[in-house]
Amino acid sequence: MIVTVTPNTALDVTYTVDGLRPGDVHRARDVRHRAGGKGVNVARVLHTLGADVRAILTAGGATGAVVEADLASAEIPADVVPIGGETRRTTTVLADDGSVTLLNEPGPRLDDSEWRALVAAVLARRTDVLVCSGSLPPGAGGYAELLGGALSILDTSGEALLAGLAGRPSVVKPNAEELREVTGLSDPVAAAAELRKAGAGAVVVSLGPEGLLAVTGSGTWQAKPSTVLRGNTTGAGDAVVAALALGLSLGEPWPDILRRAVALSGAAVLGPLAGDVDLAHYHAEQGLVAVRARQH
Amino acid sequence: MIVTVTPNTALDVTYTVDGLRPGDVHRARDVRHRAGGKGVNVARVLHTLGADVRAILTAGGATGAVVEADLASAEIPADVVPIGGETRRTTTVLADDGSVTLLNEPGPRLDDSEWRALVAAVLARRTDVLVCSGSLPPGAGGYAELLGGALSILDTSGEALLAGLAGRPSVVKPNAEELREVTGLSDPVAAAAELRKAGAGAVVVSLGPEGLLAVTGSGTWQAKPSTVLRGNTTGAGDAVVAALALGLSLGEPWPDILRRAVALSGAAVLGPLAGDVDLAHYHAEQGLVAVRARQH
Repeated sequence: MIVTVTPNTALDVTYTVDGLRPGDVHRARDVRHRAGGKGVNVARVLHTLGADVRAILTAGGATGAVVEADLASAEIPADVVPIGGETRRTTTVLADDGSVTLLNEPGPRLDDSEWRALVAAVLARRTDVLVCSGSLPPGAGGYAELLGGALSILDTSGEALLAGLAGRPSVVKPNAEELREVTGLSDPVAAAAELRKAGAGAVVVSLGPEGLLAVTGSGTWQAKPSTVLRGNTTGAGDAVVAALALGLSLGEPWPDILRRAVALSGAAVLGPLAGDVDLAHYHAEQGLVAVRARQH
Repeated sequence: MIVTVTPNTALDVTYTVDGLRPGDVHRARDVRHRAGGKGVNVARVLHTLGADVRAILTAGGATGAVVEADLASAEIPADVVPIGGETRRTTTVLADDGSVTLLNEPGPRLDDSEWRALVAAVLARRTDVLVCSGSLPPGAGGYAELLGGALSILDTSGEALLAGLAGRPSVVKPNAEELREVTGLSDPVAAAAELRKAGAGAVVVSLGPEGLLAVTGSGTWQAKPSTVLRGNTTGAGDAVVAALALGLSLGEPWPDILRRAVALSGAAVLGPLAGDVDLAHYHAEQGLVAVRARQH
């Protein structure tokens, strides 16, 4: 089973507006609510693919209740750790010109017993691949406390990423900017090598429309999509993580994992909301992704 | 007593961000929640001034419960008409460059019995001045059903304004753009005369930093603030309405009412959130507003 952990759960709210003009008054034409946070998005994508997945997440207050109800209605298996704070909201503003603007609330503070309950919930599950996703709310411990038992993917940034390397995650998945931020190096291959030295088994760097770069113990590859897609890129990174988790759980070789990940990322860009994927694109694109081995 | 009616209540959420950049990801530094909707804002201002006021409003769902709790904690007297729908949210994004951007959700539909309950709640109160503020949600009747008994102020736009004139409101308060929209006339004095012919006792037009224009049965005046203020203009119109209601309830002559309204509008621009007023500015500015009679 793949288990995703979301310490900083969100209710994702999506507004559709004619255009977003700073200083103006906007009327949202369409308002949608969905359980979110990166680990929840990963679980949603894996559930859509029919994978055996479970989301472990925090939830609190009225907003947390909406998150729980949405997970139940989508039939995504979930272990919810109740917290005293109110689950945050993240608002996505979709404008008719195609722009996607995010407004993220900070997460509620976890007290020590709430963090311990989250750790216990993760340890209680028999896990083939553990996915640790997103930012840590105030009061949370570190991802390193969760890692180490199974194959694992760590998808976070900054301090949470650096501290998490002590847990020796099988894969970390920064984007190019996050990778530069934590290493100070602008060459992604050199920067990835640094993260591997610090504890990561493999480093998969998302390069936006250029695809993915994977620096692993068995080689370095770059995987490019067959075409550049326009759409909502918010959930693309979570779709990459979902594909990595599925590929790891199946024991696939890296080139196959990367084809799957690039194809699923594109499928997410075509989906209307974060966590949605276009399955036709996913299946067609896997055969079209160009994977090229690179010299170290 | 002054009674305000808010058929389309909102939970006002205010995010503070570094800057609002369409297409970008923003982290809200500060998140504040407050009961809102124009009539609620008017009641809040009047309550701050120590006036005898009561807010009558709809509220539903978890968001409605937050609205009710906020009114109770602010000790604003309120009659809440419960509705089956979920109270909407309006989000104000305050950026460090001073820009104020609003994202408004549409209101939930009222069923006929909910609208009737709102009308009954208004008719049950002994009212000196009735304030009808804001948009009408789907399913609502018209403001004309509420008007007619007492002195009254109607602050709405478009169809809701035109239909409400049948109730012969004592005062309507469009801004220049709303006035042009409903009359098709660009000269505000001529446009105001049209609204008076259609049923309005007086027309007070907000002209932004230029102050107020009042076209009444006893004369036409323009009132200008002593200085142009920078700040959050979201609640300025509601503060004007609060001052008009207070002035009408006290039987003040129009020049005095307009001084009060211009001063309170500026006091709202200086307040951090809609419904807040800077009392020192309000008191000082009343003596500085320039009121000039205009020829018809």
